[in-house]
Amino acid sequence: MLKKELFFAGGDLRSAKLAEMFAQEGYIIHTYGLENYDFKNNNIIKEERLKLDDGKIISAIPFSKDDKYLNAPFAKEPISIKNLFEKAVGKEIIVGAVKQEIYDLANTNNCKLYDILDNEKLTILNVIPTAEGAIQVAMEESEETIHGNNAIVLGFGRIGKVLSKMLVGIGANVYVEARKKEDLAYINAYGYNMVDIKSLKEYLPRCKYIFNTIPHLILDKNMLEYVASDAIIIDLASKPGGVDFEYAKQKNIKAILAFGLPGRVAPYTAAKYIKETLEDII
Amino acid sequence: MLKKELFFAGGDLRSAKLAEMFAQEGYIIHTYGLENYDFKNNNIIKEERLKLDDGKIISAIPFSKDDKYLNAPFAKEPISIKNLFEKAVGKEIIVGAVKQEIYDLANTNNCKLYDILDNEKLTILNVIPTAEGAIQVAMEESEETIHGNNAIVLGFGRIGKVLSKMLVGIGANVYVEARKKEDLAYINAYGYNMVDIKSLKEYLPRCKYIFNTIPHLILDKNMLEYVASDAIIIDLASKPGGVDFEYAKQKNIKAILAFGLPGRVAPYTAAKYIKETLEDII
Amino acid sequence: MLKKELFFAGGDLRSAKLAEMFAQEGYIIHTYGLENYDFKNNNIIKEERLKLDDGKIISAIPFSKDDKYLNAPFAKEPISIKNLFEKAVGKEIIVGAVKQEIYDLANTNNCKLYDILDNEKLTILNVIPTAEGAIQVAMEESEETIHGNNAIVLGFGRIGKVLSKMLVGIGANVYVEARKKEDLAYINAYGYNMVDIKSLKEYLPRCKYIFNTIPHLILDKNMLEYVASDAIIIDLASKPGGVDFEYAKQKNIKAILAFGLPGRVAPYTAAKYIKETLEDII
Amino acid sequence: MLKKELFFAGGDLRSAKLAEMFAQEGYIIHTYGLENYDFKNNNIIKEERLKLDDGKIISAIPFSKDDKYLNAPFAKEPISIKNLFEKAVGKEIIVGAVKQEIYDLANTNNCKLYDILDNEKLTILNVIPTAEGAIQVAMEESEETIHGNNAIVLGFGRIGKVLSKMLVGIGANVYVEARKKEDLAYINAYGYNMVDIKSLKEYLPRCKYIFNTIPHLILDKNMLEYVASDAIIIDLASKPGGVDFEYAKQKNIKAILAFGLPGRVAPYTAAKYIKETLEDII
Repeated sequence: MLKKELFFAGGDLRSAKLAEMFAQEGYIIHTYGLENYDFKNNNIIKEERLKLDDGKIISAIPFSKDDKYLNAPFAKEPISIKNLFEKAVGKEIIVGAVKQEIYDLANTNNCKLYDILDNEKLTILNVIPTAEGAIQVAMEESEETIHGNNAIVLGFGRIGKVLSKMLVGIGANVYVEARKKEDLAYINAYGYNMVDIKSLKEYLPRCKYIFNTIPHLILDKNMLEYVASDAIIIDLASKPGGVDFEYAKQKNIKAILAFGLPGRVAPYTAAKYIKETLEDII
Repeated sequence: MLKKELFFAGGDLRSAKLAEMFAQEGYIIHTYGLENYDFKNNNIIKEERLKLDDGKIISAIPFSKDDKYLNAPFAKEPISIKNLFEKAVGKEIIVGAVKQEIYDLANTNNCKLYDILDNEKLTILNVIPTAEGAIQVAMEESEETIHGNNAIVLGFGRIGKVLSKMLVGIGANVYVEARKKEDLAYINAYGYNMVDIKSLKEYLPRCKYIFNTIPHLILDKNMLEYVASDAIIIDLASKPGGVDFEYAKQKNIKAILAFGLPGRVAPYTAAKYIKETLEDII
Repeated sequence: MLKKELFFAGGDLRSAKLAEMFAQEGYIIHTYGLENYDFKNNNIIKEERLKLDDGKIISAIPFSKDDKYLNAPFAKEPISIKNLFEKAVGKEIIVGAVKQEIYDLANTNNCKLYDILDNEKLTILNVIPTAEGAIQVAMEESEETIHGNNAIVLGFGRIGKVLSKMLVGIGANVYVEARKKEDLAYINAYGYNMVDIKSLKEYLPRCKYIFNTIPHLILDKNMLEYVASDAIIIDLASKPGGVDFEYAKQKNIKAILAFGLPGRVAPYTAAKYIKETLEDII
Repeated sequence: MLKKELFFAGGDLRSAKLAEMFAQEGYIIHTYGLENYDFKNNNIIKEERLKLDDGKIISAIPFSKDDKYLNAPFAKEPISIKNLFEKAVGKEIIVGAVKQEIYDLANTNNCKLYDILDNEKLTILNVIPTAEGAIQVAMEESEETIHGNNAIVLGFGRIGKVLSKMLVGIGANVYVEARKKEDLAYINAYGYNMVDIKSLKEYLPRCKYIFNTIPHLILDKNMLEYVASDAIIIDLASKPGGVDFEYAKQKNIKAILAFGLPGRVAPYTAAKYIKETLEDII
């Protein structure tokens, strides 16, 4: 039987791990834009230029930080998105977290993009490394313990639910903000401190850690006035995120846009999850 | 009323924070061996040489990593312990985690050492930042999540109890090893997996995270044979610790001697606790 | 200002508490079908017969156990539903958990029924006393501890979520059965043992406590074959419930239809919640 | 091989279960004072009078509620302790929770008493059913949920530790009272509300549930003045207990001396533990 081949273009540590996992299963991996990563497996070939066949291209997940260049920290030189699409005319490219303008750009080159981060299964699998990663970032950015401090989680969706539970597990006093009556009832049932969106201003000032999971601007100029100067804001919402980072900076409040946490804090776990998902697709 | 003065010699981030806290309360702080730390408070003076009066000297906590030089990462140049003692003849010096040989060396210069880490109150206060710090280190050293992985805690004393609870809080499958019948009964009552010291060998191979709190060599050559190659060992026991690091290195097992965690991961919290304790002493 | 009046017809301990709460706030309460309850408040009048004015009638919650007679354990004699409706022609009656046939019967007497248990807010408020009540029943029916035993929760909806959390809190080994991929992912994220509906048969035999929250016949003859003989089944689903009680009885398996738990195990709390809800309505 | 025989005298449900367990293993059980219990096993013989051989007698655990008669709810008629000792002259009798005066009385008849509840192993095993039983009693005695209410645990020993954890698990706001600095530090580390014995008076009034584990009179007349009128006191301390029950009654405060909880709420579990312990002894 013929060895199966896979084609990688760019990507961060998560993609590197992913390549290694597939290689261990006997895949031949052609990589481009991972030149500076030291692979341990001989099935992984570093190509001079983007190599293609009839198959899909597995590109960066997330795809880009500036919507101009690929998210490719291990590339010997920056790879422009435009350039990639021109080389990959007519191909299907697996990407992550792309904006409409990127889809449009792809169309002009007749590339088909599949945003794997829109995949339901993966989204759920990523909840855990995202929540755990948020706690790691909070620990690293803070000079205090999480234990015994006040932490507030904005939003009680998928990530909010798991993150709140972990924060209590570490020993934080956890506040959870929500809008819906039903969510507030559960927040109470789970033993967290309920914060109705309407009374958020009263609670913000006492919180050392602020985790946002709401995908629209909730911590705007007005709200940031109520945030303590030594607070740490960690924004987990998908871009553009829920924080006015400009203004936070002006006010000297530490605010972090936690982007692609699973890949950063648990690349192996994250890669494992992407692999599970890719296997459904490829 | 006369401004109170304090004299610092060396120390890590924890000492720097400590100096700032006292300064904020109006103390005049004379520091030596903290040259490269950027203090924000005018009450803190960086002295050319060790300045003294009749009072105590607050030195590094922990005192040294090699028992030759002070633990002083912000010093413009290394400060030898011998040199410090010679300059501080007859003084009382507040230190942390010193060995008998250091006491002896101090005696020859008629210095009185007070090891604040032997202070009961501080020991208890430090349990939380130590446990939380251990989790941070585990997160940073690992490419997987803690959630859903097996973690074992060796020893069910002060740190073991709090650490186990936090690990469950993050979502690990927690095993706890103990010797005493009573401890095993509590381990069970708290819902952890009991591991009698006798059957440790059976459980080690399945554990991704191994936290040692036992202050004698438990993970020796023999035991390390049962540790998984991708495991992460974090030793929280006071020096010399409970792991054969030499052999772990040979076997390519990641083993970390987590030394002075409170100061490293939560310097502000740690400093606050030391301050509380110092105030009892000074 | 005129004293406000309320009219009660039947009801269990929950209704009695409810009457007392309103009485304490100065309401005059006319009760019928609560003769044998010893009220401590003079604002509560036990009427010889159903007294009416233009207002609503607050009747039994839940309304009936046999769909013939009112749920009225404190009544001096049984009160037939038909009889009540005939006496209350044209009135609005607040009830709980009524079937379509009861609505129809009401219509023939031109009575308007308002089923307060369909009220969204109350449903959520009742989740907690229901879950806690389920644990109390399990404790009372069992000769073993919950701690250290296997418990399975069928369904991961409102009650399932809170109940699972409480069971872990007591120290049970908790299994949760669900159907949806997303639910299973959360069950895992929360640290429970996932049981896909498909593999339920493998897990049932090891479970001492079985809590059903699914409102259709899941524990049918076939499934009951896999239930341990010393297991305790507690059905929390709204009538007709999810258990073949006939067959369970034949097989000598203890199966309990936990009906109106909030009223039974925490009448004061339950009444407080109903009061909150009634105040929105009246 | 000869069938082994065991001799039971009195005892509650726990003893009955115990007899059945041994019987299932092939022991011949001679019972006296369990006449009204319906045994299902033919190896269990109900004797007209206390039957003896050279072996030990397994008597009531706990031994007595009034120090005059055996704890024997299933006996056809009361059995006086004095009478038992006179019949069992020279024998060794296994008992539970006996006072010095009982030991003295035994001596006069040259009976040797072995109080199994003093057995270290059993004491630890009983912590769980005691804590879980305390929660069951609280649920049964209360008309409110435990969830969302304030509960205080007096004493942070074996039972206090496990009980506090379970109460949090149900969703109570848990306060824990202790005396020792170290205990208070752990109470904080475990995320409970610390209550120093000195400030107990401030916290008592807000507590709906009060669990005492301290074996001396802590809730005396003076302290009871600070207990809310609707509070429920559950005393888990060994006799005489830590509550002035007389005065509590005068003040109409519900106070329960929870005596031999394991046997009452989880007889099977309790019996299993006693069996384990007896097997070490016999």
